[in-house]
Amino acid sequence: MPQRRKVVVCRDLGPDVMPTLLNHPELEVIVWPENSSCDRKWLLENAPGASGILVLLSEKVNAELLDAAGPNLRVVSTMSVGYEHADIPELAKRGVKFGYTPDVLTDAVADLSIMLALMAGRNTKETTEIWPNFVWSPFAFCGPQLSATSTSPTRTAGFIGFGRIAQATLARLVPFGFTHCLYTANPSTPPNPAADAQVAAKYGVKEVRRVDMAELARESDVVFVLAPGGSKTYHIVNEEFLKQMKKTAVLVNTSRGTLVDSDALAKALHEGWLYGAGIDVVEGEPNVDENHPLVKAPRCVVLPHIGSATTETRIGMATLAVNNLINGIFGRPMPAELSVSR
Amino acid sequence: MPQRRKVVVCRDLGPDVMPTLLNHPELEVIVWPENSSCDRKWLLENAPGASGILVLLSEKVNAELLDAAGPNLRVVSTMSVGYEHADIPELAKRGVKFGYTPDVLTDAVADLSIMLALMAGRNTKETTEIWPNFVWSPFAFCGPQLSATSTSPTRTAGFIGFGRIAQATLARLVPFGFTHCLYTANPSTPPNPAADAQVAAKYGVKEVRRVDMAELARESDVVFVLAPGGSKTYHIVNEEFLKQMKKTAVLVNTSRGTLVDSDALAKALHEGWLYGAGIDVVEGEPNVDENHPLVKAPRCVVLPHIGSATTETRIGMATLAVNNLINGIFGRPMPAELSVSR
Repeated sequence: MPQRRKVVVCRDLGPDVMPTLLNHPELEVIVWPENSSCDRKWLLENAPGASGILVLLSEKVNAELLDAAGPNLRVVSTMSVGYEHADIPELAKRGVKFGYTPDVLTDAVADLSIMLALMAGRNTKETTEIWPNFVWSPFAFCGPQLSATSTSPTRTAGFIGFGRIAQATLARLVPFGFTHCLYTANPSTPPNPAADAQVAAKYGVKEVRRVDMAELARESDVVFVLAPGGSKTYHIVNEEFLKQMKKTAVLVNTSRGTLVDSDALAKALHEGWLYGAGIDVVEGEPNVDENHPLVKAPRCVVLPHIGSATTETRIGMATLAVNNLINGIFGRPMPAELSVSR
Repeated sequence: MPQRRKVVVCRDLGPDVMPTLLNHPELEVIVWPENSSCDRKWLLENAPGASGILVLLSEKVNAELLDAAGPNLRVVSTMSVGYEHADIPELAKRGVKFGYTPDVLTDAVADLSIMLALMAGRNTKETTEIWPNFVWSPFAFCGPQLSATSTSPTRTAGFIGFGRIAQATLARLVPFGFTHCLYTANPSTPPNPAADAQVAAKYGVKEVRRVDMAELARESDVVFVLAPGGSKTYHIVNEEFLKQMKKTAVLVNTSRGTLVDSDALAKALHEGWLYGAGIDVVEGEPNVDENHPLVKAPRCVVLPHIGSATTETRIGMATLAVNNLINGIFGRPMPAELSVSR
């Protein structure tokens, strides 16, 4: 009988997925036993000799962890689409493969983006908790309407970052009467008006156009923050941006909390620079409490990072993370490997 | 100078709309002065001699009011699409025209129906109030996903009532991957499979089909209650219906509270007969407080009847109600008159 490969799994991934690992005849599986984030000390103690490690956003994948694991390590697999918790150059230096879970959560996050755009405009922060202290009046709770109307027949969606989730969100907006789409992109990539025209034709909108942040702020009825986290996008939504937004616009962030300056957004909502906000991610999460400026801000819905939290999608992510791990260990093509150039 | 016609307006409709009435040279306008529902005694005292009365859902339009107004009355105009507060035969008997506000609120209510379908599935009752007491885990808060997925590639919408709002809701569901549409209709109307096929082709779904309540309950991933109120639809969603729903389904009611048995729905949510509910209307509203069984029920979002509450739509409704009133008084065609056959 061949020696089994050791794998360390930083969270129990549930009865739909764990048997694939636990029943694998060639694996010795060590799982963090608590219903909480994996303890760092436990992880470093169990990493030595591992061929694979399965992590979540909460685990830093850095030189410390990779050194602890040692030369047997072939793959780190994260159950997330984001990888700002992983030091990619350190992985590359050691020739360790890295798996992640793109695509499978696209629809769940696009769904949540639409939900938050609606909740921000419909003022659900106030309307869900109003019982019994409210007096109906013709314009109580009224804010901007997401759908186009006969008297205001156009709508513009603005996307900070225009990848798969943004385009899935745009597709959902079309029957609401959205006619125009603006987006910002990484400045290092060249503009491509021909590709933009193809996207416009695909979704049936009048225009898809790459713009700068100032034009995006000025022209959008809804701004969706859907770019990666990290230093290049840190606080890209700041006071200057928020001051340029329409007073009737709403902001939705379903990507990473670091892109939005929380204090600036809270100030903007208190002062009415924009109408409302729907926020699934907050800088510093999960250390957010009822005194956080965004939780206290008017017309601001704050959710605890549930973008991908549907049964179907989380099973899909966990399955993909496990398959990345197993295939990486045995040198087979991984279903979703991030290319880590040295 | 001709004698001015008296009109009684049961609520101040705001600065965008009231000048049309107040500055009309041929009208004497009496407006309920408080920011609350119009007092019945005040209304009955001011009605005599009126040529027109503008009401809201809160004002009963019955023989008592019509008798108080007397023979000058030519039109009653309601700022609502529903008219269960009006005794249509009594209006017909007196030859009093009746105006209402259909169509103009279709998109706002369809928007809210989508929002509530998403909020029920995403468990926002719990997730909006979780700070700071939550522990992330791979399947925390996970419920059914509104969008279709690669592993469950079909979705069925069920509509109790299939008028304009239902079809506007269906249009919005298509990019979420909805493939099938079932509906129930007034039994007195004949089925029309050819028309159903046309609707399916129009929205790009595989099937639109009229069914009975039992099949609708069994097959739908989301049930939208969008039929008129009144005795014919009273508690049409009852224990029997709820017991037949999928455990992963959600119920959305954006029509009238009387269609849903609140106690049955609360029981169904506590016992898990369905996953969640999004409710904009509650039987007995606005007398709903934090002890109401639906406000206390798990995975149940309860809103204070804000279906049409967007700035654009409420201005549109108020404008239409005023135009119905003025045109009715002067014998001109009303933009939205309900035919009241004698």
